[in-house]
Amino acid sequence: MAKRLSPSDAMFLYGESRDQMMHVAGLMPFTPAPGGSPELLRELMHELRTAPVSEPWNLKLRSPDLLWNPLQSWTEEPTVDLEYHVRRSALPSPGDERELGILVSRLHGNHVDLHRPPWEFHLIEGLERGRFAWYVKIHHALVDGYTAMQVLTNALSRDPDERDRPLFFSIPPRSRARAEPDADAGSRGINYPELVAAVREQYGASKTVVRALLNVVQASRAGDHELVSPLEAPRCVLNARISRSRRFATQSLPLERLRAVAKAAGGTLNDVVLALSAASLRTYLLEQGALPPAPLVAMLPVAIRARDELGGGNAVGAILATLATDVADPAERLRRIVASTTTAKQQLQGMSKAAILQYSALLLAPSMLQMIPTTAGHLRPTFNVVISNVPGPDQPLYFRGARLEASYPMSIPVHGQALNITCTSYAGTVCFGFTGCRDTVPHLQRLAVHCGEALSELEHAVHHG
Amino acid sequence: MAKRLSPSDAMFLYGESRDQMMHVAGLMPFTPAPGGSPELLRELMHELRTAPVSEPWNLKLRSPDLLWNPLQSWTEEPTVDLEYHVRRSALPSPGDERELGILVSRLHGNHVDLHRPPWEFHLIEGLERGRFAWYVKIHHALVDGYTAMQVLTNALSRDPDERDRPLFFSIPPRSRARAEPDADAGSRGINYPELVAAVREQYGASKTVVRALLNVVQASRAGDHELVSPLEAPRCVLNARISRSRRFATQSLPLERLRAVAKAAGGTLNDVVLALSAASLRTYLLEQGALPPAPLVAMLPVAIRARDELGGGNAVGAILATLATDVADPAERLRRIVASTTTAKQQLQGMSKAAILQYSALLLAPSMLQMIPTTAGHLRPTFNVVISNVPGPDQPLYFRGARLEASYPMSIPVHGQALNITCTSYAGTVCFGFTGCRDTVPHLQRLAVHCGEALSELEHAVHHG
Repeated sequence: MAKRLSPSDAMFLYGESRDQMMHVAGLMPFTPAPGGSPELLRELMHELRTAPVSEPWNLKLRSPDLLWNPLQSWTEEPTVDLEYHVRRSALPSPGDERELGILVSRLHGNHVDLHRPPWEFHLIEGLERGRFAWYVKIHHALVDGYTAMQVLTNALSRDPDERDRPLFFSIPPRSRARAEPDADAGSRGINYPELVAAVREQYGASKTVVRALLNVVQASRAGDHELVSPLEAPRCVLNARISRSRRFATQSLPLERLRAVAKAAGGTLNDVVLALSAASLRTYLLEQGALPPAPLVAMLPVAIRARDELGGGNAVGAILATLATDVADPAERLRRIVASTTTAKQQLQGMSKAAILQYSALLLAPSMLQMIPTTAGHLRPTFNVVISNVPGPDQPLYFRGARLEASYPMSIPVHGQALNITCTSYAGTVCFGFTGCRDTVPHLQRLAVHCGEALSELEHAVHHG
Repeated sequence: MAKRLSPSDAMFLYGESRDQMMHVAGLMPFTPAPGGSPELLRELMHELRTAPVSEPWNLKLRSPDLLWNPLQSWTEEPTVDLEYHVRRSALPSPGDERELGILVSRLHGNHVDLHRPPWEFHLIEGLERGRFAWYVKIHHALVDGYTAMQVLTNALSRDPDERDRPLFFSIPPRSRARAEPDADAGSRGINYPELVAAVREQYGASKTVVRALLNVVQASRAGDHELVSPLEAPRCVLNARISRSRRFATQSLPLERLRAVAKAAGGTLNDVVLALSAASLRTYLLEQGALPPAPLVAMLPVAIRARDELGGGNAVGAILATLATDVADPAERLRRIVASTTTAKQQLQGMSKAAILQYSALLLAPSMLQMIPTTAGHLRPTFNVVISNVPGPDQPLYFRGARLEASYPMSIPVHGQALNITCTSYAGTVCFGFTGCRDTVPHLQRLAVHCGEALSELEHAVHHG
C-alpha cells in the first residue's frame, strides 16, 4: 500500500543532493557484559540478518530517481535485504575515541540508498577494552529525530540479563510512534500542496520570504524586543556552502550540573544547553578571528502544544533565539538567552496549531533557499546554527547485557548551515553531538572541548558570580 | 594552471550520477615482512599524511557542481588534505576474504568527492594472519586504468629490503605517464568539441547511432562473418539499470596454465581470459535460467597501433567479440572467440588512428545513451559485458617489506552494463576482478567460482579433448 509523504518528509527529500545528505544518525557505544567476545557479535549479526522487518523499516520511495515527483510516496519492500542494511565494521587499532570519530564521520558522509528502505545499522567492533558501538543511520524523511531516539531505545532493555529483545527494526510501531498522513491528509491540518506551493513560490525571492516571516512575526501578539527576528542573524563563517564530507565530535556532561545551573538562573535545561553551545561557538570563532560583532542566532526545533489543541499530539515548531555571543560574561549571556527563548515560546503558545506550522515553515523557507547550489552561501542567513535537544531515556539501558555508555545524535549540515548541534539526555548525562561539514568547520573537535570547559565557567559565574 | 579535460576524461564525468560512479580501484592484499605489527601501519599513516603530493594527485575539477560545464578543467589544489585522502580501515574478525570483499564492495559503492582531487587511499588492517590491504580508488576522469596500474606498481619495490620508497601520490609523473591534452588539444588528433558534439547529437536517436556504427563497420575492409556487429548482442539480465551498491569478487589463476591453453588453441592470453569469462557467464546464467539463446557479446578495450602511426603512443580502441555462450563445448567456444577477436583486431589494424578513435567512440555512444536514467535498461544493448585485461608487473613486488599477494582491479558498472570483468597479471598469476551492481547481479561471487572451475575444463578440452 502506498503512503503519501508528509510535508516535512518531502522537504527532507527535496534537500537531498550530492553534497547535502538528509540522514540523521545515532552513535551509541556499549560496554559489553563480562564474557563478551567478537565471536558473539558475529553470531548476533547472523541473528539480526534473519530477523523480521516491521514498518517503517520496510518502506522505500516509489520514485527515488525523481525526488521532486509530486506523487512521491512510500511503498512496501516485500523482501528487505538485511545483508545490506545490517553491517559490521571495525576500528583500526587502538580503537579509541579518535578512530571511532573518524569512522562515523566517514559513514555519515555517505548517502543512504534511496532505492531501498533508507536506513543502515552498523555494528562497530574493535573499540578499546573490548567495547563496541552502534551507528544507526536513518533518512530524515523516514522518521524524525525524536521518533528515531524512541525507537532505538525501545530496542534496549533496562534489564542487563535480558538477552532476546528484538532489534529496533523488528519492533512493530506503536500506534503513535509515527504520525502517518493518510491519503488525503487534509484532516491532519497540513495541506501538502499548499505548503509546497508556498515554499516553491519563495524560491528566488528571498525578500518575499523575509517579508512574509516579518508579517507573521508582527501579527503575533508578543511585541517584545527580546523577540529575535530573522533579519538579525549576522553573517558568519558557519553559513557557507558545504561539501559532502563530515566531521563529528562528542561531549557528555552530567545532567545534574546542567539542571543546577538552569535552576539558579531561572531558565530551562534547554537554555543551559544553548548557553554551553553559545560559549563554545564564541571561543571557537574568537580563535579563528571570525566572531561576528552581532550575536549569533540559533534556530531551535521545539515541541509546542498549541492553544487550539485539546490534548495529545505534539506540534513541532521552530523558534529563533539569540546566543548572545557578543557578551563576554557567561551569566549575563545565559540571562539574555533565557529572555530570548521565553519570549519566543510565549509567542508560539499564543498561536493556533496551523499558525505555528505556517510560522515554522516560513522560518525554514529561507534555509531551504540556501540548499540550491547557486544561492548557497550567498544569501544572508536568517539564523546561524541549528541547536536541537531531544529528550532521551533516564535509566541505564542494555543490549544483550552490554551497557549503553552514551547516546550521541548525528544530524544534518546543509548549504548555509554547516554546523548542527544536537544533544540528548541519557541516564544522568547530556550527550552533545556536533555534526559539521569537514571543510567549512575545521577543527570541529575544539567545539566539543570548549563546550565541556564552558560548563565549569558557567557554573562559577551563576553560582558564585 | 587550468588543464583542459581530454574527451575521455569528460565522458567519465558526464556519466557520474547518484547510481553510476565513474571510479576505478585496485585491491591489493599484502603479506607483511616478519615483525610487522599494526603499530607499524599507524606510524606509516603518519608518514603518508605528511608526504608531498605530485600531479595528477593534486588536481581537482574547476566546477564540480556543473559536471557538464563545457569549460570544465582541472585546477591545482594547493593544500591537499591528506587526512582526508589517506585513510585507515579495519576488517571485523576473523578478517577473511569474505569480510574483505564486503568492505571493499561498500567502499566502492561510495562516490569519490569531486570537490577534491578525486582519489582515496585506504590502508585496511585486520586481515587474518596479520595481513593488510590497499584499496585505492581513483576517478576514471583523473587517470585511465592502465596508467593507474602503472602508477600503483611504481610505488612498490622489487627489493623486499627497500623501506623508504614514496607512495604513488608522491611520485612525480613520468613524461608519458599521463597524456595531457594541452589547451587547444588539436595537435593530439582528438577534437574535443567535435567528439562531444557527435555524442550529444546521438542522444535520443539510438537508431542513428547504430546506423552510423554499421556504416563504419561496412566501410571497413574486413567483411568476415566472424565480425560481430553491434546488432548481434542479445538482451540479457546483465543489461539492466543499476543501483548504487556494488558487489565484488576475485579469482586468481596461474598465468602459466592460461598461456599453455592459449598456445594449444592458437589464440592469445586475452582470448583465454575471454573464454574463462564466457564459461563463467554461461554457467552463471544457466543457473538462473537466464542464458540468452544467442551468444553474449563482449566489448574489449584494446591497445592498437594504427597504420598511420610511426611509433610510440598507443591508441586505445574498442572491439566487439563473441563469447560463444551458446556453445557447450569449451574448446569449440574458445575457437569461436579466437576467430572473432582476430577478425575484429585485423579490422582495426587496417584503419587510421582517427578512424579507430571514431569507430571506438561510436561503439561506446549507445552505451552512453544507456547512462541516461530514462532510457537505461530499455534500449537493446550493443554489447553485454565489458571485459578488460590490463597488463601488470611480472615480478613480485614489496611495500615496506610486505609482499604484494595479488592485484585485483575494480571497475565501473553503468546503467545497461551491470557487470564489469577486469583482470591483470602479476608475478605469474592472472587476477580477475568481477565488479557488479549488487541488485542486478545477485550471487556475483559464483562468477568467480565458475571462472576458476572453467580453467580446468578448458585445459582438459584443449589438451585432451
